[in-house]
This record gives sequence, structure tokens and C-alpha cells, in this order.
Amino acid sequence: MDLLKKRILEDGKAIGENIIKVDEFLNHQVDPVLMDEIGKEFKRLFKDSNITKILTIEASGIAIGAFVALHFGVPLVFAKKTKSLNIDEDVYSTSVYSFTKKTDYDVKVSRKYLSDEDNILIVDDFLANGRAALGLVDIVCQAGAKVKGIGIVIEKGFQEGGRILREKGYRVESLAVIDHMGNGEIEFKS
Amino acid sequence: MDLLKKRILEDGKAIGENIIKVDEFLNHQVDPVLMDEIGKEFKRLFKDSNITKILTIEASGIAIGAFVALHFGVPLVFAKKTKSLNIDEDVYSTSVYSFTKKTDYDVKVSRKYLSDEDNILIVDDFLANGRAALGLVDIVCQAGAKVKGIGIVIEKGFQEGGRILREKGYRVESLAVIDHMGNGEIEFKS
Repeated sequence: MDLLKKRILEDGKAIGENIIKVDEFLNHQVDPVLMDEIGKEFKRLFKDSNITKILTIEASGIAIGAFVALHFGVPLVFAKKTKSLNIDEDVYSTSVYSFTKKTDYDVKVSRKYLSDEDNILIVDDFLANGRAALGLVDIVCQAGAKVKGIGIVIEKGFQEGGRILREKGYRVESLAVIDHMGNGEIEFKS
Repeated sequence: MDLLKKRILEDGKAIGENIIKVDEFLNHQVDPVLMDEIGKEFKRLFKDSNITKILTIEASGIAIGAFVALHFGVPLVFAKKTKSLNIDEDVYSTSVYSFTKKTDYDVKVSRKYLSDEDNILIVDDFLANGRAALGLVDIVCQAGAKVKGIGIVIEKGFQEGGRILREKGYRVESLAVIDHMGNGEIEFKS
């Protein structure tokens, strides 16, 4: 998605070889016009997948997910992060390892909002090691629903998440795949 | 806003005299069509206020804020909740007391995204005791920006937040004000 790549080059900051900050337009300050275009693009990519719900995870997936949901005309469900999981029969839950925080956190979704008749598009701002996406896949599977695709705004192509998900057979569509970072430069996979 | 009140009566759940659950359409599952209408309504209410940025707080304010931002054609900034505040000169920060969790939490916004030239519309899903809104007001004031208004989706009119903010002179517009709850019934202020 050229508009997105242009914006990443203009306003993103590469820190070392691993960290990219895009809080100017994606995950602290949010450009709603760009989000709307991102929603439109995911609709174009998954228009034949009979999507019934969009699933993301708080907090930075929500703005993206809301616009994707609007373009599909279906509800957004956002999974909630919790420090410790209370035993609660009303939720699907899973544990996700955070490489940033070097600890597990728990993720939950109310059973009311996912059913075995749902076709789910998972969306998120970043795909790096893939742990958050795998956690959402686990929750969709617990509900007996189908993962029809995984829509990512920025994939770090040099980390393993995309490979793991694709090898498991999931359709992953990333609007910008970063191939390499270093010396403040960002190179996309063409 | 009649569409919202109708939805609250249909899908909201009053628990006791104090708690209303609207996670069917507002803060776990999100109806993007309703969010878009909410965005349109806040634009109508604050169209003459020369708003330059929308400010909300993660997580449940983000979907609302994103659509409000789209209708105004300005960026959304969402304040981040942190467990403990690192000393960081690059952020505006404040402490907010949570009555639900009976503890303080810290809220921060990068200094890059608020300036003394901004006219801010604060938006949030709920207004009850007003602590979160007062925290956001504090952050706007630290930036030297102007609070042009506070847009709330559901105000608990029987709690003190609305009164406190209005007595301080802020323009608070709530799309639905609940006057009274009990026996599973919800009554709006007319």
C-alpha cells in the first residue's frame, strides 16, 4: 500500500535494527484518514471471504479494526488484556508472551461475541514474532469459528511471525513489509 | 441522540443501581455504524469550535475517538495508561484515581502531539465520577492548549462527574444521560 509506505518513510523512526516508531500516525497519535484508507484496502483484499466479524486486541489495534469493521459492515470485537485471568466460564482466554515486556499476559474475549458460525478477519497494527496473532487465532479456534485471514498494517519481515502463520496455512496480508532497518533507514520488501 | 438511547435500552444491561454494561456495541464488541453516527453527532455539536485535535484515553475511547476525528478531519491522540510513571521529560502525565479498581493509575501523552496552539475536544465512552476526564483536562492544560469541549457517549447523571466539569466551566455534551437505574430498568434524563 503505497500511501502507507510513503507515510512510514516520512514519519516513522527506525531505532537500531529492530524497532520502528510510528506513533505519529498509528499508535499514539492516529491519522483517521489513513486508517479509513487502510480499512478500504483490507475490504478490497478480503472482500470474497464472507467476513462476519473483525477481531483485534487492545489498545493499538482498535482504531484500525474500527475502520476495517466499518468497510465490511460487521462488528469489531477487541480482545482485552488482563494481568491475571480470573476463572471465568464466560470468556475464551489464552496466554501471550510479550518479548517487549519479557512476561506473559492473558487475553480474553467474551463468549457472547464469537460463535462457531463466524468467519473472522484478525487485524493488528504490527506483526513481529507473531505471539499476539497466534493468541487471537487460538481464541477464534476455541470458539469454533474460522480464521479467514490476518490483516497486518506493518509486518517486520525479518522476524518470524509472518513465516509461522503462513506455514500454518493462514492467509496473512500485510500492507507494508519491512525487509531491513539500520542507520535510520527503512527498506521495504518489494 | 435517539439512535443511541434506543440501542442502550435494547442491548444495555443495568446491574443494580450503578453499573451499566454496554459491551455488546460500545466497549468490547463495537458497532462501527453506530460509532460513525456518534462521530457525526459530535461534529454537529462542536462544528464551530475550531477543533484541531481529538483527545481520548485507551482503550474504550479509541474507537469513538477515531470516528470523531474522521468527521472533524483532524488527528486523534489517545492517552496511554501506565502502571508506574517513569520519569520522562517527553510526556505530559497525570495521576487518575479509579473507583472501580480502587487505586491510582498514571496517564501520559507525548509532548510531540499536543501544543499550545491546539483546540482540543476530549471524548470518552463514559462519564461517571469524572476522574478520567479531569486527568485529560489536566494534560491539555499542561500543554497550554485549550479544552473546547468534552464529548461523552453515556453520562451517569446520578454521579458527580458532569456537575464538577460543568461547574469548572467546561462545555460537556453527553449523547445519553442516564438519570436513574434500578430493577434492570434504565431511565434517561429528558
